[in-house]
Amino acid sequence: MSEHLVVDCLEYSAPTRERFLEWQRGRVGCVHVTISVWETARETLSVLGKWNDLFAENADLIDLARTVDDIRRISSEGRTAVVFGFQNTTALEDDIRLVQVFHDLGVRIIQLTYNTQNSIAAGCWEDDDSGLSTHVGRGFVREMNDVGVLIDLSHCSERTCLETIEYSERPVAITHANPIEFVGSDVELNRRPKSTEVLKRLAESGGVVGLSPYVRMLKGGKSATLQSFVDMTLWTIDTIGVDHVAFGTDFYTGYDVSMVEWWRAGRWGRRSPVPIDYDAPVVEWPDWFDSPEAFPQVISALSDSGLDDARLGQILGGNWLRLFGQTFSPTNGS
Amino acid sequence: MSEHLVVDCLEYSAPTRERFLEWQRGRVGCVHVTISVWETARETLSVLGKWNDLFAENADLIDLARTVDDIRRISSEGRTAVVFGFQNTTALEDDIRLVQVFHDLGVRIIQLTYNTQNSIAAGCWEDDDSGLSTHVGRGFVREMNDVGVLIDLSHCSERTCLETIEYSERPVAITHANPIEFVGSDVELNRRPKSTEVLKRLAESGGVVGLSPYVRMLKGGKSATLQSFVDMTLWTIDTIGVDHVAFGTDFYTGYDVSMVEWWRAGRWGRRSPVPIDYDAPVVEWPDWFDSPEAFPQVISALSDSGLDDARLGQILGGNWLRLFGQTFSPTNGS
Repeated sequence: MSEHLVVDCLEYSAPTRERFLEWQRGRVGCVHVTISVWETARETLSVLGKWNDLFAENADLIDLARTVDDIRRISSEGRTAVVFGFQNTTALEDDIRLVQVFHDLGVRIIQLTYNTQNSIAAGCWEDDDSGLSTHVGRGFVREMNDVGVLIDLSHCSERTCLETIEYSERPVAITHANPIEFVGSDVELNRRPKSTEVLKRLAESGGVVGLSPYVRMLKGGKSATLQSFVDMTLWTIDTIGVDHVAFGTDFYTGYDVSMVEWWRAGRWGRRSPVPIDYDAPVVEWPDWFDSPEAFPQVISALSDSGLDDARLGQILGGNWLRLFGQTFSPTNGS
Repeated sequence: MSEHLVVDCLEYSAPTRERFLEWQRGRVGCVHVTISVWETARETLSVLGKWNDLFAENADLIDLARTVDDIRRISSEGRTAVVFGFQNTTALEDDIRLVQVFHDLGVRIIQLTYNTQNSIAAGCWEDDDSGLSTHVGRGFVREMNDVGVLIDLSHCSERTCLETIEYSERPVAITHANPIEFVGSDVELNRRPKSTEVLKRLAESGGVVGLSPYVRMLKGGKSATLQSFVDMTLWTIDTIGVDHVAFGTDFYTGYDVSMVEWWRAGRWGRRSPVPIDYDAPVVEWPDWFDSPEAFPQVISALSDSGLDDARLGQILGGNWLRLFGQTFSPTNGS
């Protein structure tokens, strides 16, 4: 098995050196990390400040990537390239010019909304799904296209996915979600997996979906096996094509219940609208993927399943790098 | 004609002593002014700071009202009571606890959204009308009910109006909009007037609508007469009952085109999504209502139309004061 560049297109752990060492041991060449979900613009600047310190203190392990060339260079040095992303548009504060400002600061991937309705789009938790909004939503999609920000639809609603795929002039991403036709609608977080129609339209437009070992989105939940994860990967390749399938593990660790409450309700709710299991608030990861250090054994299983080396290279990183190359630069520039 | 307490339940002029003198000359006892539309929380604090200066400098003409008793006292002194309101929820920054914070600062009326989609609700400009949002929207309506903030639906969509009237435990307001059945859908701003169904449901729930002489929402537009305005008032009384009709002129002056651009597109758009007439960007007011100084002649015309003194008192201010009394105080308090 040759050494492929591995891209994990979403992790959201509390960032520490221990995590960066796991990336090194797992030979993960690039990780898309979340730096804002409900944080305001000002608060997001402080998160960026903390990452600046982390880059300085862990220069032997990580560096910020602004381009595909950066990713290739950093990973070739045996380090992990970090790509900044938002899982929400809260930090843009309805100011269209902040898209460019945060792009200048290195942000390359932005999810339109996180679960709920905002000015731009409906999230996957909304009972009434209005899709991409008429004025604010379309305007921000155009702006992200122009500035060079890859649009992420992972936590968006069905209509938001379909309408954004249609409206966007550049291909888009679903960085971390599984196919509902494979996993079934009885999974714990059953509003998160994507319909086959969304996945097919995504592929037709040149986009990529990142599959995740997050047990609340896996067929069989906590008892899901590595073989089942491999089967889901092969099913998705068969359904939408090998050019459009990759990984976004959604891996996170290092938090207590307060972070789960923050993700669920931000500041907009006095309590989480979906139940939190206070006995086990933070998700358990399957024994075959208890950290990104487990990537090599996932890769072995994929290889054993009959995927040839070229296709393996695509789904491990090649597809993301192709999409990043198509979306990270401004329309008027290189 | 006895002297009724006149409440103008929306004005949005640049605040200066000249405006306050017009209120005095027009014998306007109370005005609901807008202190935030697209302003952030921080920016709205500065607007409040400017109003503090205005209250100090014009103590002979105006004072802040936090309760109906304040309104009665201030107006009985020959001054004008100012009620603070937001025409949008931008300043709440998706932080549910800011409802109480701004109530503590005197804000008593908040519109859920201004024309477009936000996290709480769909505005009247949206092509896809999702109404009140499942989680954020319902949560903020409950919070405004609990804290003691009157909900305003003037620039909201049809479904947002219907769902909020249904969901809110307290009656709500449409502070400034006209009935589309009377004015016709060929008015310039044809997404702003309200359907008869919305107005009837509003009345059934105890709410009040404020009619406006804003020419872009009047039958006949710029050529609308005072008699036509009186006819609209009588038509609305006949349709939903005298307990639910009042005035909210939407009067504004003192701005140039940059303010119109701000209202239309805030910071979310690079340009206004609806055309601005750059030859005449700021609306002209009809000659029979070129400022709030004209209230006495409007009152005379209403009186001449056969409205008796009791009903006149209701529509000039009594209905608003009744609604304010039902909504300005917290659920757990007085």
